[in-house]
Amino acid sequence: MPEKLIGSAIFGQSGGPTAVINASAYGVIKTALEAEEITKVYGAAYGIKGVLADQLYVMDEEDPEELRLLLNTPSSELGSCRYKIKDPEVDDTDYKRILEIFKKYNVRYFFYNGGNDSMDTCNKISRYMESVGYPCRVIGVPKTVDNDLFGTDHCPGFGSAAKLIATTCMEISKDTRVYDNGVINVVEIMGRHAGWLAASAQLATAYGAGPDLVYLPETDFDMEKFLSDIDRVYREKGKVLIAVSEGIHYADGTFVSEAQTSATDGFGHVQLGGLAAMLADKIRQHTDAKVRGIELSLLQRCAAHIASQTDIDEAFGAGQEAVRQAVNGETGKMIAFEREYIDGKYHCRYAAIPLTAVANVEKKIPAEWINAEENGLTQEFIDYVRPLVQGRPDYPMLDDAMPRYANLRKVLANQNG
Amino acid sequence: MPEKLIGSAIFGQSGGPTAVINASAYGVIKTALEAEEITKVYGAAYGIKGVLADQLYVMDEEDPEELRLLLNTPSSELGSCRYKIKDPEVDDTDYKRILEIFKKYNVRYFFYNGGNDSMDTCNKISRYMESVGYPCRVIGVPKTVDNDLFGTDHCPGFGSAAKLIATTCMEISKDTRVYDNGVINVVEIMGRHAGWLAASAQLATAYGAGPDLVYLPETDFDMEKFLSDIDRVYREKGKVLIAVSEGIHYADGTFVSEAQTSATDGFGHVQLGGLAAMLADKIRQHTDAKVRGIELSLLQRCAAHIASQTDIDEAFGAGQEAVRQAVNGETGKMIAFEREYIDGKYHCRYAAIPLTAVANVEKKIPAEWINAEENGLTQEFIDYVRPLVQGRPDYPMLDDAMPRYANLRKVLANQNG
Repeated sequence: MPEKLIGSAIFGQSGGPTAVINASAYGVIKTALEAEEITKVYGAAYGIKGVLADQLYVMDEEDPEELRLLLNTPSSELGSCRYKIKDPEVDDTDYKRILEIFKKYNVRYFFYNGGNDSMDTCNKISRYMESVGYPCRVIGVPKTVDNDLFGTDHCPGFGSAAKLIATTCMEISKDTRVYDNGVINVVEIMGRHAGWLAASAQLATAYGAGPDLVYLPETDFDMEKFLSDIDRVYREKGKVLIAVSEGIHYADGTFVSEAQTSATDGFGHVQLGGLAAMLADKIRQHTDAKVRGIELSLLQRCAAHIASQTDIDEAFGAGQEAVRQAVNGETGKMIAFEREYIDGKYHCRYAAIPLTAVANVEKKIPAEWINAEENGLTQEFIDYVRPLVQGRPDYPMLDDAMPRYANLRKVLANQNG
Repeated sequence: MPEKLIGSAIFGQSGGPTAVINASAYGVIKTALEAEEITKVYGAAYGIKGVLADQLYVMDEEDPEELRLLLNTPSSELGSCRYKIKDPEVDDTDYKRILEIFKKYNVRYFFYNGGNDSMDTCNKISRYMESVGYPCRVIGVPKTVDNDLFGTDHCPGFGSAAKLIATTCMEISKDTRVYDNGVINVVEIMGRHAGWLAASAQLATAYGAGPDLVYLPETDFDMEKFLSDIDRVYREKGKVLIAVSEGIHYADGTFVSEAQTSATDGFGHVQLGGLAAMLADKIRQHTDAKVRGIELSLLQRCAAHIASQTDIDEAFGAGQEAVRQAVNGETGKMIAFEREYIDGKYHCRYAAIPLTAVANVEKKIPAEWINAEENGLTQEFIDYVRPLVQGRPDYPMLDDAMPRYANLRKVLANQNG
């Protein structure tokens, strides 16, 4: 039996938002509010910045029905941050301040929801609290559309982003075939270093209407090869749909988008348009087709209306599991997903893995899931992603027309209290 | 009683696609297949081009269940065209060919589904057939995301595009507020001459999370005023979400996007990026905020997954009504929508109006629906658009994951008779 640790909890959101990060928030907050050991539940305003600034929302003050709406509310409802915390050995100012706040509010549970960098923050706080002998259980809740967290089969947020991308590419594929003239569309997809999101576009192809070519940051990009791939498909079909990761790079490591920016704009002006526009321009010089560049942009991290119900359930489950594990004595861990198939049916099991093993490591697409031509994915990848996008959320609506999001009160904890 | 006209029917899709143009196709095809007077139903490949090229698909050969899937399949499933037919007085070559095809297949019903230009084509064919004494009933079925067709309360296709835009802007609005630093996002929305689509972004604001500022082509754009509007909102909220129509123009009529293109690229290169990227660049020079330009691009005309069920129903109804009216003796008409409120509840009634009154006329947003500052819409506009976006389609899916689209056989009519 673990020692029973009584005290309050802080939950924070960190890094880029996703369509389901608030589902994890609800998982943590609801479970913490119900836990005997947890006396009060605080939500940090803008992640760790809110802890440092003593800006904590009292979750006990929220209407449970509004909290429930977090399941279908996109983006980080409590606010997020991209704050790189220093190594405590280099500068422990932040840690002293965090300890001060923890003591002030008798915080014994800290839950931090984010990606690689956030797990690093989480890990450092965990180690610091241990080093100063302050009993506090620290658990990371995974989150990233990029799906690049190590030690977990997949990440909450990825399934919904993959679904938005695949569904949209399916729709764009239909649009690409509307006229009898030549059309080439290039879709730019998020993912600076790992190509999980761009790869998901190929799910559309697996379901009958999707990109002909997919380019990932896991391989080196070759412009000649790219243009000749396009020529080949164009000659055959008269239409080409291409999905590219924003992180594609040449063999020397230069991002394709960067290379072009410096080449076309010597005035130091900010780049107009992005990779899709640039590649569209390149293709235009080689063909008589109508070429269009499309950037899915922020929709990839906020399109709750086309979220995966599986993703919502798992995001909620990860939050819930974090609280359960902490109450049961775990600390310094991140909740991870393990995939299993029971009678051929996908199931997701929760595990807790050491934060030290996760922090700052990036998981990429296995080389054997990328086709030999390096312009598409194998069936293994399709089989991997398919279960993650299943289920259509029946999100609450206003007037049967528009989504109804959570409307939190966000009552600040009394700083003098 | 109208004269009973027995013969076959041709249905064609024209102009840009929408999320629901295939619902109109289904309305026409299903009703025509069921009509006693109509002996055979042909779908023209790529609109009028398919008639000219004698490329007609036999709809009688299709599986009724696959045809039904057209209700939720985006884009123009039979193929579309942007073919400007000449005036018959100038050059009647096309008309003679069309008459030849009509005679060959004993076509007595012609249904054409499109926007302004397509209604012009429809009108010209109708007048020509009348002038040569060939009995044929010609009915236009309205379609355009732009909602700029004259003589109808609104157009099929608009409601779904408006819903995609409003829902997406609601999601982006949430994303705009994630961090505690300054953020300004600019969303570029379709609509070259009429601002109905950009205006729809404000529906998101009416539902609690949407753009702070909306700029339309119905008014003259002033860059100074634009930047000062943004400054004001930014000072107040620290975040700004802006929706702009692609068709915004200066007082002298120059499109804002065009002006910038010529200013930055004197080499005749195709413009990199669009208006959103350009405005984002302008704003960046005036602020320390993180600024992002977002183009909704093709999603506005193909996002069937977030279609409005009202729009689907009305698009289907317009197709159905076209066949009914034709069978009942009407010709040279377009199906139009009349709005009525019964016990405060929105209803859509069908009418048939002369094609001559519709062709080549553009309907813009009434000046009194635009606010005095010319950066937003009044409640009248919100009341106008709200009923059009209602209802969530329960579209068929594969694996409970991805949309299942219609898969037509497209059997070509035997050209040798």
